[in-house]
Amino acid sequence: MGSALAAALLDAGRDVTIWNRSPDKMNPLVERGARGASELSEAVSASPRAIICLLNYSTTNALFGTPQVSKAVSGRNIVQLGTSSPQESEDSKTQFNNWGAGYLDGTIMCWPGNIGTPSGRIAVAGDNVAFADCEIDLKVLAGDLRNLGSNVRSAATLELAFLSRLLGIIFGSIHGALACEAEGVPVSEFTSILPPGDRAIPLTETIHAGSFDQISTGGASVDVAAEAVTGLYDHAVSMGINSELPSLMRDWVKRAQDAGFGKQETAAVIKTLRKQ
Amino acid sequence: MGSALAAALLDAGRDVTIWNRSPDKMNPLVERGARGASELSEAVSASPRAIICLLNYSTTNALFGTPQVSKAVSGRNIVQLGTSSPQESEDSKTQFNNWGAGYLDGTIMCWPGNIGTPSGRIAVAGDNVAFADCEIDLKVLAGDLRNLGSNVRSAATLELAFLSRLLGIIFGSIHGALACEAEGVPVSEFTSILPPGDRAIPLTETIHAGSFDQISTGGASVDVAAEAVTGLYDHAVSMGINSELPSLMRDWVKRAQDAGFGKQETAAVIKTLRKQ
Repeated sequence: MGSALAAALLDAGRDVTIWNRSPDKMNPLVERGARGASELSEAVSASPRAIICLLNYSTTNALFGTPQVSKAVSGRNIVQLGTSSPQESEDSKTQFNNWGAGYLDGTIMCWPGNIGTPSGRIAVAGDNVAFADCEIDLKVLAGDLRNLGSNVRSAATLELAFLSRLLGIIFGSIHGALACEAEGVPVSEFTSILPPGDRAIPLTETIHAGSFDQISTGGASVDVAAEAVTGLYDHAVSMGINSELPSLMRDWVKRAQDAGFGKQETAAVIKTLRKQ
Repeated sequence: MGSALAAALLDAGRDVTIWNRSPDKMNPLVERGARGASELSEAVSASPRAIICLLNYSTTNALFGTPQVSKAVSGRNIVQLGTSSPQESEDSKTQFNNWGAGYLDGTIMCWPGNIGTPSGRIAVAGDNVAFADCEIDLKVLAGDLRNLGSNVRSAATLELAFLSRLLGIIFGSIHGALACEAEGVPVSEFTSILPPGDRAIPLTETIHAGSFDQISTGGASVDVAAEAVTGLYDHAVSMGINSELPSLMRDWVKRAQDAGFGKQETAAVIKTLRKQ
């Protein structure tokens, strides 16, 4: 995703300095005109604005928490685009503000191929002044740019809400496939009545084919689903809202992990629900 | 739905005899060329094939269980299109076969407006001989006609599976909306990132507007949702498959009914999940 972001800015004629933990990964972008920095602090110092796109917020904290880097962010605006809990987003804002930087927290709601196009969708929230400064660049990345305002927890919350709906489709469809199996109705019949583009299509195809060992392009592993449902569960508990649905989903993925299916498609959850 | 079925057959030039428990409802179809029967037995006797589309299968059993009507179906083919459990479908086949009729059990998987068009989708299962006889008429009704074969429980099962996915979307989205509310993120932001046509759109719009008293065109009441989740739960229990997900959904709608929200939009379930 980081490459897609940098490439879109380069295509729009921006000066871009990039940094990656694996220097080799920078080569294609350097060939397209980016400056490759050898140190993170050097990359941060090169521009008034920086976009962070890393695996998770712990990684961000480890990389930016050194004296050299935290000093370099002072007086700049930081946009962090990644998956986080609302609390992690808030903690990041506190941290970057303490270092003297403006902060926007965002979530990318499209595939890498949509970045830099009118259908690219990114939602951000945080410091208003930072948004005013970064909007021109964010507009390059996402034709469908959404400013959620000053509640920095908003983008992560929206991602959680969307995930909750998605997990509802996944687990509802797993139960539906279970009902088909129990009745001797081929799961492919279920697949065939799903609307085009539905997340349940690769899921039910996997169940029908019994191909749990291959993670489909539209799919994710049980372990990845476990991260997602745990995030949803932890959020509900931390906010004191009803947690029954994420709790049930967490139980389901845990059973699949305990049965050794963690690396298989999320669809493999069905194997622990079948009659033994 | 019955009117849409009869109208499509009339439009295709078929001779159609109709019967309805409310005679007045037949008038528009009679004006379009249908023959209106004054008794159900008369309607059944008028054609070699009959299509049943009633509120539920108990109604069918009550109407067809009289000596006059059950005698009239003998030697004919019956297609029942409606919502049923797989067991009800099987019981109906047994009953109609005992009366000497061929039987197809089907489910309509589109809106009334799609009936008689290429996008009309109907799935049927049951007696192969009955299908061969009725196919020409069913093709008129549904361009996307699916014969699921001789397992008469298939169409109802497919409907249950689709419902399970749909309820997953609904309950997953209710939890997502709950997370938004807890974080002070307007639920309309959640609505705005849902894919076009998604069932969660009217649901989240209702939550955002607080308009639980109006049942939206894309929605259903808590009482209707209760029927659906109870059907899903009863099926899981009767087949001995995992019933945890429908059980949780049943608990949620029951709480909403107990709180007096039965006649409100299904979205009203959220009101019993909020922090008190």
